[in-house]
Amino acid sequence: MPLSFFESPTDTREEILAAAYDGIYTHGYADLTIQKIGDEFSKSSSLLYHYYSDKDELLLECLEFMLERYEEHLSATDIGEPEAALEELFDTYLHPDPEPAQRQFTTVLIELRAQAATAEQYREHFTRSDRFFESKIREALEAGVSDGSITVESPAETAAMIYTVLIGIMMRSVSVTDTDWQPAARTELERYLEETLHR
Amino acid sequence: MPLSFFESPTDTREEILAAAYDGIYTHGYADLTIQKIGDEFSKSSSLLYHYYSDKDELLLECLEFMLERYEEHLSATDIGEPEAALEELFDTYLHPDPEPAQRQFTTVLIELRAQAATAEQYREHFTRSDRFFESKIREALEAGVSDGSITVESPAETAAMIYTVLIGIMMRSVSVTDTDWQPAARTELERYLEETLHR
Repeated sequence: MPLSFFESPTDTREEILAAAYDGIYTHGYADLTIQKIGDEFSKSSSLLYHYYSDKDELLLECLEFMLERYEEHLSATDIGEPEAALEELFDTYLHPDPEPAQRQFTTVLIELRAQAATAEQYREHFTRSDRFFESKIREALEAGVSDGSITVESPAETAAMIYTVLIGIMMRSVSVTDTDWQPAARTELERYLEETLHR
Repeated sequence: MPLSFFESPTDTREEILAAAYDGIYTHGYADLTIQKIGDEFSKSSSLLYHYYSDKDELLLECLEFMLERYEEHLSATDIGEPEAALEELFDTYLHPDPEPAQRQFTTVLIELRAQAATAEQYREHFTRSDRFFESKIREALEAGVSDGSITVESPAETAAMIYTVLIGIMMRSVSVTDTDWQPAARTELERYLEETLHR
């Protein structure tokens, strides 16, 4: 999965989105302002006010940008054997000491997803985003069933469960100081996948 | 589970906490101020400034109050047969049209948990809180193993998984507009519990 969305911005718009992505990690959503995003931005921050009327407009564009990159990436990539792909997914997200880029990504995503609890625009984004990611998991499971490598009973239901677990993992990872739950959940997930993919 | 923490406040402190609990649901964390909490409060809002230096101090006390009520409730209550208790838990949280009190509770909890992504005090609270709830699930599973009603392989690992799924369910429920994923996840959870509790 590409986490380096903002490493080498190709134009001013991407530079602005990169500054917003860093800003939300540094300040948190509640304390973030267009001005603070401007402070992370190499050009004049008046440019930001020119393009975006408020921070939500900018942050939603940042989310859309990431989702589009994922859509491009996942439509161009063969996910491969679903069992291995899921193992890799959970290894990445259930990591007691994740890479800094991974930690930032999870933190930013959870901060912004939590806005959806009270703001409709964010709710609409995450509805689209969840449908996309859940359908990718379902398609990978269906492909595995077709080629006979797995025998999952209902790819749609298993995908709904797996994606829900993933959201739970992301939320817990950034909201607690201990990591004891991670290897425990990982072992149980292993058992669950073993049983589910070979029913 | 008692969701009516704030229905009949018994003193001024509980009235303040009730106003904070309502305020976060009405305004969302980012837009909430002590002044807005004061507006929900029947007495003079200068009282709030007297007791609390900022909104986080008040909101953290609100979280502590709820956790204490849960601790009292769960230590005084026999959870009963673990399979039925888990079914009931998932019926409550995977509900396409939850009771207003349930929706408010989930929204407030997710809003405040998301603060833990960038604020240590919240992270400390949710670390304690997660340990408590996860251990309650583990104990219920252990009791079921002891009385022979279930045969789960590792109560600690199953509890870590179940609690992670629950957090994922809460997060998804308040952050998307569709509910299609809920019955799908519910059916798969049913399969998972069936396999897990009778291994």
